[in-house]
Amino acid sequence: MPEQFASNANAAVVRRRPILAVTCGEPAGIGPEVSIRAAWERRAEINSVLIGDAAFLAMIAAEIDPKIRLVALSQQALRNNGLPNFGLDQVAVIDCQLEAHVQPGKLDARNGRPVLRTLDLAIDCALQGIFDGIVTAPLQKSTINDAGVPFTGHTEYLAERSATPQVVMMLATDRTTPPLRVALATTHLALKDVAAAINFDSLSRSIDILHADLQKKFGLKQPRILVTGLNPHAGEGGYLGREEIDIITPVLDAAKARGIAVSGPYPADTLFQQKYLAEADCVLAMYHDQGLPVLKYASFGHGINITLGLPFIRTSVDHGTALDLAAAGLGHADHGSMLAALDAAAQMVQAGRQGKA
Amino acid sequence: MPEQFASNANAAVVRRRPILAVTCGEPAGIGPEVSIRAAWERRAEINSVLIGDAAFLAMIAAEIDPKIRLVALSQQALRNNGLPNFGLDQVAVIDCQLEAHVQPGKLDARNGRPVLRTLDLAIDCALQGIFDGIVTAPLQKSTINDAGVPFTGHTEYLAERSATPQVVMMLATDRTTPPLRVALATTHLALKDVAAAINFDSLSRSIDILHADLQKKFGLKQPRILVTGLNPHAGEGGYLGREEIDIITPVLDAAKARGIAVSGPYPADTLFQQKYLAEADCVLAMYHDQGLPVLKYASFGHGINITLGLPFIRTSVDHGTALDLAAAGLGHADHGSMLAALDAAAQMVQAGRQGKA
Repeated sequence: MPEQFASNANAAVVRRRPILAVTCGEPAGIGPEVSIRAAWERRAEINSVLIGDAAFLAMIAAEIDPKIRLVALSQQALRNNGLPNFGLDQVAVIDCQLEAHVQPGKLDARNGRPVLRTLDLAIDCALQGIFDGIVTAPLQKSTINDAGVPFTGHTEYLAERSATPQVVMMLATDRTTPPLRVALATTHLALKDVAAAINFDSLSRSIDILHADLQKKFGLKQPRILVTGLNPHAGEGGYLGREEIDIITPVLDAAKARGIAVSGPYPADTLFQQKYLAEADCVLAMYHDQGLPVLKYASFGHGINITLGLPFIRTSVDHGTALDLAAAGLGHADHGSMLAALDAAAQMVQAGRQGKA
Repeated sequence: MPEQFASNANAAVVRRRPILAVTCGEPAGIGPEVSIRAAWERRAEINSVLIGDAAFLAMIAAEIDPKIRLVALSQQALRNNGLPNFGLDQVAVIDCQLEAHVQPGKLDARNGRPVLRTLDLAIDCALQGIFDGIVTAPLQKSTINDAGVPFTGHTEYLAERSATPQVVMMLATDRTTPPLRVALATTHLALKDVAAAINFDSLSRSIDILHADLQKKFGLKQPRILVTGLNPHAGEGGYLGREEIDIITPVLDAAKARGIAVSGPYPADTLFQQKYLAEADCVLAMYHDQGLPVLKYASFGHGINITLGLPFIRTSVDHGTALDLAAAGLGHADHGSMLAALDAAAQMVQAGRQGKA
């Protein structure tokens, strides 16, 4: 038996570890470094499978710490034999070759499509049940767009590739007491298009997805959801916009009638106070910059991004590619958010297993 | 000499104290209580002049603490003789009578116009130099609108009544290190109208007002201003909206050319991090719910609201009328934000005096 496979003694532990695909993201950013560091640090608890250019990742790993053991698998081997059970002292890499040489900090559109292929592979294998979930490092949207592929974000891409009609983006941190979770009713839209995107059906589906996944993936029996208004002061009785009266309140009434513990709409500027958050499991904000600034402020760079509604678990870091840090060389990036993303995905796997047990 | 006037020994202290009008706000809310408590607590440092129904305020003061000494002045006496120098152990009240009996927690549109008259009086006297500044307790916009007066907010009303073409709303807290200040390029607008309200001239004027008042009222020689984008991720190079490219960046370039230390546009969700805030004196956000949730989260109910660009100093609490707390009886409201608003106005008075000296 090759030494990289688990000994019998460890077999039970190895089998119980959640198997998480980690896509390493934009190669010129900090994604490869934080992915390797976090996967290695959690090797005893999580069977991380890095997806990226194996030779490039091996070079970075050797520079970070010569003790790190990466074991490369070709996509062909994976297709023929499935994923082997790796032992506790190594991290698997599935090879997805880049097209252009990587200069840290410098974007190259030729690597846009290869980065996308790491996602495709992760999604396909997650849908087949080979992975328990996917954890993604940041990629550079512009590089993929510059490579000729229209791309608005991981979240939207994962939904499309898995034929999921609607997903919900949620950011979370356990740096606060209680943990803070903020989900969004709309995601990456120009501000001028947000109001028109809020409608009864879509908002109702977001609430259903949020409710179902807080139960299924977080083990919350009756999740309590606080919902913001769209307008300042939640429209102030119609004086500052009517969407609260015409859309949001009817949606919440209907959700309550379905047995969902939802309340609102609340003014976004006063909702994020301890006295309200202490009584809630999640905030649903209407749009990106209404909900995320508080979460990122409170999480001190250790927030994570979770996509709800997908047929698999997906978490991500809450930071970008940080090209400037990557250009400065290894050792400048903080892999705290990637550790948090791995841990959260692992917890969701366990909550899902307990739910089924 | 009547006993309420200052003894000679105290005359110098009394003269140096900033004279601040405190409008007591919606009478059915917590405004009267927090105004009285804060004015009394700061009586040695600040010459607060409460503006409200004198009989009503006297009744509340007696219930809060029989030691509180309020001295009522009629508007007529004020017009005839100006404002007397009150001693250190009392708080002046300028009588502005209500029309309907007050039931705490219950709004009555008949009191909408009297509340507005407290503002008119404060503004007129501030413009005449009788007050060094105005501090406002919360009022209920709907009550004033229901009384037949179109009213979108204190900020807009103060601007209109003082013939100020443009003002800037800023919220601040000293509960963070460094103190956090967030100004807004637009204020109380329905979200669907925000994008169209961002234009070159208006945004340029906001930056000029912010820069000038941070110098004049905060004593900052070269204030450093961080500016958010309008769209998520500051438009991500045009993929999520073009206002950053077409409007905000040109505005910032022009402001830099005028010698203003401004930078951006930055994504709002990642701007509020210690590493950026530590190097800045103020954040300029594009709209209400983009900038204020973080500030209110960080200030724990001790934030204050400052209107920049007016010909006088104006601060305010950052909370609402809290009708539920008022209905529960005296002793439930926290006057921390009102204390912070008084202190901030007093500091601005001192900074202004030093600037002129």
